Amino acid sequence: MTTFAIPPLDDEAIAAALARHGRLAKPAGSLGRLEALGVQLAGISGACPPPVPSTVTVAVFAGDHGVVASGVTPWPQEVTAAMVGAFAAGSAAVNALARGVGAEVLVVDVGVASDVPAHPAVLHRKVRRGTDDLALGPAMSLDDAQAAIAVGADVARDAIARGADCLVTGDMGIGNTTPSAALIAALTGRSPEALTGRGTGIDDDMLRRKRKVVVDAVRRADGLPPLDLLAEIGGLEIAAIAGYIAAGAAQRVPVVVDGVIALAGALVADALTGGAVRPYLVGGHRSVEPAASAALEHLGLEPLLDLGLRLGEGTGAVLAVPLVQAAARVLAEMATLDELLG
Amino acid sequence: MTTFAIPPLDDEAIAAALARHGRLAKPAGSLGRLEALGVQLAGISGACPPPVPSTVTVAVFAGDHGVVASGVTPWPQEVTAAMVGAFAAGSAAVNALARGVGAEVLVVDVGVASDVPAHPAVLHRKVRRGTDDLALGPAMSLDDAQAAIAVGADVARDAIARGADCLVTGDMGIGNTTPSAALIAALTGRSPEALTGRGTGIDDDMLRRKRKVVVDAVRRADGLPPLDLLAEIGGLEIAAIAGYIAAGAAQRVPVVVDGVIALAGALVADALTGGAVRPYLVGGHRSVEPAASAALEHLGLEPLLDLGLRLGEGTGAVLAVPLVQAAARVLAEMATLDELLG
Repeated sequence: MTTFAIPPLDDEAIAAALARHGRLAKPAGSLGRLEALGVQLAGISGACPPPVPSTVTVAVFAGDHGVVASGVTPWPQEVTAAMVGAFAAGSAAVNALARGVGAEVLVVDVGVASDVPAHPAVLHRKVRRGTDDLALGPAMSLDDAQAAIAVGADVARDAIARGADCLVTGDMGIGNTTPSAALIAALTGRSPEALTGRGTGIDDDMLRRKRKVVVDAVRRADGLPPLDLLAEIGGLEIAAIAGYIAAGAAQRVPVVVDGVIALAGALVADALTGGAVRPYLVGGHRSVEPAASAALEHLGLEPLLDLGLRLGEGTGAVLAVPLVQAAARVLAEMATLDELLG
Repeated sequence: MTTFAIPPLDDEAIAAALARHGRLAKPAGSLGRLEALGVQLAGISGACPPPVPSTVTVAVFAGDHGVVASGVTPWPQEVTAAMVGAFAAGSAAVNALARGVGAEVLVVDVGVASDVPAHPAVLHRKVRRGTDDLALGPAMSLDDAQAAIAVGADVARDAIARGADCLVTGDMGIGNTTPSAALIAALTGRSPEALTGRGTGIDDDMLRRKRKVVVDAVRRADGLPPLDLLAEIGGLEIAAIAGYIAAGAAQRVPVVVDGVIALAGALVADALTGGAVRPYLVGGHRSVEPAASAALEHLGLEPLLDLGLRLGEGTGAVLAVPLVQAAARVLAEMATLDELLG
């Protein structure tokens, strides 16, 4: 099994960044949450000022979900593969937003149900053709879950080896708010009914069905250790995101986390590493999905943006990247009060 | 007197943008507030998709305030001029953040109390050496207020003539949260006590003094028309921001508004133009100053960011620029569902 050796943040760099914020030419605390974020980046990088992240990788992990057969979404499963095509062609929302911040988009087929055509922008790392229907039994085997985690970890390590200094999570998978809500309920202890949301927009009947699936899954998974829980509920892209986050943290790279799917992956990574990934996470945005807020709270993350997004793909996290860069930049480029008045 | 002919937004472009958002390859409404912002940019530019703002100007208007003599801030007035030096040298927070988004920073001395050394990055447009103490009488004459408005309008027109397609407000002036709170209370009808905040961080005694100054000024200014109100309360940089906003709107350029000082200027521009500037405004962020939220609500603006900033300089608005660009970019670059599935 893939294990992750994740170091704690660098206390010396944190202390230096806190002190530097106190000396910069501005009233103490006047840059609000940008200050805490800059301190976190110093702790992650072990340097004050921290380097400004300049090589940003967005990995969009795509997988399908057998639970679509239980009627939890109005979208046909084929949309997952179609969107993989859009990511590869650069014409999806996340591509447009990534271009805006100069980030690279990697598309990773970790479990799309159909064949994904070869394309230079797609990493073909399919573990299996979608999960089984979690309403009927385990979504996948322990081996599959581990393999999907390893895919995510490999993608993170490769990106970092090529120079990435900031990782962004992305996801695509029709039906994936169902396992995400179940995983988040199981890992936070919150009510699965309350955490089940409308995803991309479903009606009341479908929401009732989805709630029942989530409630039953959480009950069935009660008490399982994290990896078994992940296998029981799914999905493949969530497992890959967990591995991607843990591998990023292990290499001291900040990971900007997107919405509810990414947060399910972050909670899995958190559980698998005994909380060691937590200091490396940056909450990109607050998705409107109720489970997202529960996961953010559990992880102690206050997201940078709250724009009512519920698209996924990594869109909310990509939008937050300039704020992460800004937080590092003020520590690096602002004059101190002494320099100004001296 | 400078007057502004501000056209309404382009209804046809708005309708086209709304329709396009419905056809893009994403669930309806899933990009949240980015969608409304994109529609606004279409209406402002008269085109769908709207051009992605690429030449962004941040104008930092600097002025001093006679009210510092009444003990409303712990900072000495000399800090205004020192910060002008920092803006010119590129070492203030707003410079660091503007570099991050590729924006130009213009520094405009519209009313600094002391001499500002010549510097290629500073526009010397001093109307007078600071305002008079608004605790004792009118902050400035009507002529001065008009001259300061004209300075701001000129700066906007010059920037647009040089290619700016997005304006950002910035400000510097020790003591300027006092006139800002008074102007916002007077123009929104809200309680001046409740709207007076701690600015850059003042103690309880100082806050009591500041409240009394604000309450007395609002009482004295009761019923004055907008220009007279501006002259009575000040300040020069607030007047310049009002002119800058109105001139930007007159030339159909979006204006991203910063915190409480900028919002006081926006309310003045709103009052002077009978509300015509309003559709051109983008709320950059929610400052922690209580008057900021009152002004945002009055102007119908939901700010893009809420990061606990209270620095001014334009920092919160500059941070929001990538979101404005992103809103235009999704309309321009995303595939429609038909293109994707066709």
